[in-house]
Amino acid sequence: MSSTVLYMSMSLDGFIAGPNESLENGLGDGGHRLHEWAMTGDGVDLEATSRSGGANGKIVDEFMTTGAIVAGRGTFEPADGWGGDHHDGVPIFILSRDRHEAEEAKWPLVTYVSDVGTAMARAKEAAGGKDVLVHGAGTAQLALAAGVLDELQIHLIPVLLGEGRRLFEHLGADHIELEPIRILEGAGATHLRYRVRR
Amino acid sequence: MSSTVLYMSMSLDGFIAGPNESLENGLGDGGHRLHEWAMTGDGVDLEATSRSGGANGKIVDEFMTTGAIVAGRGTFEPADGWGGDHHDGVPIFILSRDRHEAEEAKWPLVTYVSDVGTAMARAKEAAGGKDVLVHGAGTAQLALAAGVLDELQIHLIPVLLGEGRRLFEHLGADHIELEPIRILEGAGATHLRYRVRR
Repeated sequence: MSSTVLYMSMSLDGFIAGPNESLENGLGDGGHRLHEWAMTGDGVDLEATSRSGGANGKIVDEFMTTGAIVAGRGTFEPADGWGGDHHDGVPIFILSRDRHEAEEAKWPLVTYVSDVGTAMARAKEAAGGKDVLVHGAGTAQLALAAGVLDELQIHLIPVLLGEGRRLFEHLGADHIELEPIRILEGAGATHLRYRVRR
Repeated sequence: MSSTVLYMSMSLDGFIAGPNESLENGLGDGGHRLHEWAMTGDGVDLEATSRSGGANGKIVDEFMTTGAIVAGRGTFEPADGWGGDHHDGVPIFILSRDRHEAEEAKWPLVTYVSDVGTAMARAKEAAGGKDVLVHGAGTAQLALAAGVLDELQIHLIPVLLGEGRRLFEHLGADHIELEPIRILEGAGATHLRYRVRR
């Protein structure tokens, strides 16, 4: 059965981006540090990371064989919409209060959805039995609050970023219990996978 | 050589206590959840956890064979000063702007120190080659900022607490790089050990 799985790189102090994020500075100041485990040279290189094998390669392979994407505008825009195709032509559901009809016309894989529950349900349906890749802190928070996130795949990075944007905020005082299902030690990242208990 | 090692239970979302902490509610609302890995029944039971073996027992054994303690008033007071003896009569250095002479007279193992660098240096000297157990979020933040914390031993708890007190705050925008040195999977806690790079 398809699960909705949040994939995020997070510093030990809980940040997924550095301070001063903007469209041109999508990871915030110094935020590239969180993605070094999947970089060669100056940029993220998923193919090279996959080929390198080990835990990091395994994680990238899982990530790149998901059957649909759910993300927010804050992830989609700085990534230039992944050129309209994140990987392998799988459907992309973008959580947004507004429609962006020009983008939908240009990029047929992209659908705007205003409600996180609908986004997850449609993505699961579209994923053809594969997992759904969920991306972005805002989307994660909405999905956790709505009870529609099935798993967390955290790439825990051995650094204290000190400032920036936190992955987990505004969740309220009710505890959300997690079940650890896998720990993989990669070079430069510890990959922690949890199932959300409901 | 002696290392200063922060031992703290932390939720995946970075909290070490629930909201509404007070002297009578030292862990904050629901904060006991973070210590269940070392509890039997209603309370923390280090002897039972040690006897249970496994990763949790190993961690408790390490914790209880440290040679000195450094903590802040926020840790020391709600614990009633551990009755003046945390374990085995090792010296206890409490970081505080104020002296508390009545307590020092009552508890000969306890010394008040106003500066984190001095506290760590004196504790290392007093530890007789063993590690120094460091405890408390405020103390951790001061020690990280001053560059006098050698290692972090985080008991990562599979729960999102949502609200409470965070371990890592007020650290500023300079990254602090960590070197992962050990991961142990215990029942109800993943024990992550890092060396602070300097």
